[in-house]
Amino acid sequence: MSEKLKQLKTLLAEVADLNAVQALLGWDQQTYMPQAGGEARGNQLATIGKISHEKFTSDVIGKLLGDLENELNGADPDSDDLRLLNITRHDYDRATRVPSEFVAEYAVVTSKAFEAWMEARGKSDFSIFQPHLEKVVELNQRYVTFFPPADHPYDVLLDQFERGMKTADVKAIFNALSPQQVELLRAIAEKPQVDDSFLHVEYDEKKMWDFSEVIATKFGYDWERGRQDKSAHPFSTNFSINDVRITTRYEPDNPANMLFSTMHETGHALYELGGNPAYERSPLAGGTSLAVHESQSRMWENLVGRSLPFWEHFYPEFQKLFPAQVGNVDLQTFYKGINKVEPSLIRVNADEATYNMHIMLRLELEIGMIEGTVKVKDLPEIWNTKMDEYLGITPPNDAKGVLQDIHWSGGALGYFSTYALGNLVSAQLWEKITADIPDLEDQFRKGEFSALLAWLREKLHVHSRKYKPQELVERVTGSRINSDAYVRYLKNKFGEIYGL
Amino acid sequence: MSEKLKQLKTLLAEVADLNAVQALLGWDQQTYMPQAGGEARGNQLATIGKISHEKFTSDVIGKLLGDLENELNGADPDSDDLRLLNITRHDYDRATRVPSEFVAEYAVVTSKAFEAWMEARGKSDFSIFQPHLEKVVELNQRYVTFFPPADHPYDVLLDQFERGMKTADVKAIFNALSPQQVELLRAIAEKPQVDDSFLHVEYDEKKMWDFSEVIATKFGYDWERGRQDKSAHPFSTNFSINDVRITTRYEPDNPANMLFSTMHETGHALYELGGNPAYERSPLAGGTSLAVHESQSRMWENLVGRSLPFWEHFYPEFQKLFPAQVGNVDLQTFYKGINKVEPSLIRVNADEATYNMHIMLRLELEIGMIEGTVKVKDLPEIWNTKMDEYLGITPPNDAKGVLQDIHWSGGALGYFSTYALGNLVSAQLWEKITADIPDLEDQFRKGEFSALLAWLREKLHVHSRKYKPQELVERVTGSRINSDAYVRYLKNKFGEIYGL
Repeated sequence: MSEKLKQLKTLLAEVADLNAVQALLGWDQQTYMPQAGGEARGNQLATIGKISHEKFTSDVIGKLLGDLENELNGADPDSDDLRLLNITRHDYDRATRVPSEFVAEYAVVTSKAFEAWMEARGKSDFSIFQPHLEKVVELNQRYVTFFPPADHPYDVLLDQFERGMKTADVKAIFNALSPQQVELLRAIAEKPQVDDSFLHVEYDEKKMWDFSEVIATKFGYDWERGRQDKSAHPFSTNFSINDVRITTRYEPDNPANMLFSTMHETGHALYELGGNPAYERSPLAGGTSLAVHESQSRMWENLVGRSLPFWEHFYPEFQKLFPAQVGNVDLQTFYKGINKVEPSLIRVNADEATYNMHIMLRLELEIGMIEGTVKVKDLPEIWNTKMDEYLGITPPNDAKGVLQDIHWSGGALGYFSTYALGNLVSAQLWEKITADIPDLEDQFRKGEFSALLAWLREKLHVHSRKYKPQELVERVTGSRINSDAYVRYLKNKFGEIYGL
Repeated sequence: MSEKLKQLKTLLAEVADLNAVQALLGWDQQTYMPQAGGEARGNQLATIGKISHEKFTSDVIGKLLGDLENELNGADPDSDDLRLLNITRHDYDRATRVPSEFVAEYAVVTSKAFEAWMEARGKSDFSIFQPHLEKVVELNQRYVTFFPPADHPYDVLLDQFERGMKTADVKAIFNALSPQQVELLRAIAEKPQVDDSFLHVEYDEKKMWDFSEVIATKFGYDWERGRQDKSAHPFSTNFSINDVRITTRYEPDNPANMLFSTMHETGHALYELGGNPAYERSPLAGGTSLAVHESQSRMWENLVGRSLPFWEHFYPEFQKLFPAQVGNVDLQTFYKGINKVEPSLIRVNADEATYNMHIMLRLELEIGMIEGTVKVKDLPEIWNTKMDEYLGITPPNDAKGVLQDIHWSGGALGYFSTYALGNLVSAQLWEKITADIPDLEDQFRKGEFSALLAWLREKLHVHSRKYKPQELVERVTGSRINSDAYVRYLKNKFGEIYGL
């Protein structure tokens, strides 16, 4: 290895350590930190964030990058060293193109916007949030100008979360998906609804927790390299490839959600745990994008955890744990209950078949706001119109409508579509996996998931951030991200459940 | 405030944040970190430690210190600003006088010494540790040379833990204490031993834990600003004045130790919680020294938690919790049992009356090693001779003798005496407190500790690191650290228990 490459890696390792430390500060804040510790924690997060930014954007790193780009000119484009250089350049440009005065202004604006959003949502009064969101949109438009002209200004925002993804791609994907998903939902709506009343009774929290951990273990989660704790909002986080943690929560009105949440976060964690150890403490470590990450969490939660073969194995055990709740509920009824499709107002509670509609709505609004074709003041009306168009329901107020999500108040535009893209990718991967492992369902019926995990590790996880998301999906499945597989999956699954 | 002082405070706040972050990394490592996370945690600790050191020893801080020393020349010597300058200068000189090559060599030597000590203790073979300890001693001797000549070379080591403390002071204190404590132990040995068999049976861990937290609450521990977790070795730590945490452990052969350990760590925590909030994120924050810290932990554990008035209130509750263990044990028997005096081989298990003897032994050896009058190779023999002289017992092997403590293997010489000094200070404070609050024991009999805590906060805690330890003790009690009060306390307490 050249002396300069060695030097760069040493500097990047330091930055990686700082980022891991920041993640630990966040984990502790959401799990164990005493209530009064918040103010000091804010200072600590700010200090580490500042130092990490300073170290990463230093001229030394800029100079090394330039020198190494010359040195490695003509090297194998798939070599780890060149890929490391590429992704470091990507992240470095992202971090250095934005002036620090802008970053400071952004922090002030979003901090106020967050406060305003809290109040607006509480009072269900959009007008409180409106001027703040207008500033957020204006800042995002300004942010775009710091980067070389793109095909579409929204590309620059998307790229923060899905490296290399284009607005045109996302639009095309969703344009293909939208009519088919609407059609499916109409067909389901005409059929008798399934029963899920047994999910909305009391379950013992400790038993549900223990069962969740049994399932995480079965999925292959390594407790010597991770742990599960409680937090208000479930998440997964990691401080190294050997310390990848998950959290879950108990919701009294939806107790089984603890289980599905654990499955979901286990999916995220397995992705991180399966990364290439050689990439540790470098920008190549971690998952390649939010969408690919979400494909893993959704896969373990939905394609595995809400599948019939899974429950053919685990339902007797579940019934034995909760005889009063599901002792008299047969497997088919239970299976249909956990897959109930029902248009609803709140995205985070949406089922597999309606979820993407919530995302498409938000994506259209975001693109419109950035283009200037959608005015912030018109958002509530457009929101409600589209909710009716896509899901046939209208929010009774803005708290349950346009004000429900935290994302915009924090300044994050460009984020939402990754949730839906993750669903699509999970189905694309699934078709490939079931072709490669024909007896996969039989394995689930025996409570066996090791072949699935081994496949994911070998084909997907081990590449960490080496390939861009689209590039990775194409390498693994043969196609770029598209909705065909997901539509087939939905039609097949819900066709059976609702007898379409 | 002058611009320069403002600037210095900003830089110091950043360093304080880094140190708090390092403490969190350590807390997590000892409480929740998954087993495999250790290697990455080592990197993270090293990176934060390095950055914190670089930031603190920067020329900017050095220049500001010099300029401000001129600017504040003649200011009120007790003003916070001047005190901040003094302590920052003290810490800065400590951090900058030692060349970084020395620090690196020290890290390598102590890392190897630790490994060797582990092996030596496991095999009870001092010869394995001997060459490493010789190097550690040599490095400590070299360390001393980086500082201006002191009255005694050991002064430089002591000053790391007890700012301003002199070897001559410590020697004088222990020379006065030693014969009196030996005499007391001889007198106790002639009396019939008390019974503590009821402490060495099984207790329910959960009940003991809950009772421990009840007591911590009664002592005034604020759960909104702290929490208790489990760890292999109990400790207290803090990440700000509003986030001060404790840990405890359950030892099957000594279950009640969980309770006394919680009391001990609560004592440390209350000291930190009572600091001056105006000193946050500066070198003035925190406890002034290890000895003063230990005076607080020992006070709550021993002078409060092992006192008769305390148990007059809590014993009925304790009996109700553990009827099988102590239901038939009367209060006096229980009180004597938890205060049993018995010369023993291991320092960490020693009772109040024998503990200081273990310290004096170590102090004499440390001073001898630094002076060169005690050779490392002779340590086992000297150790065993002194154990017989001080406590009348001889270790059966070096694992239970000279190899028992971790401290020397980590390079820490100068540390041990703070444990004993803490005991002495606790008794000095106690005489003052009981004079100021004549009905203190009656308050304990009602389970009331708020007057004690209020006194400690007002007289001691609120000064944080503003005064040097000797200076602080003198301010609060009227005398410098000495053993008179502690000897009176021991004679009085154990005179009653053993009927001397």
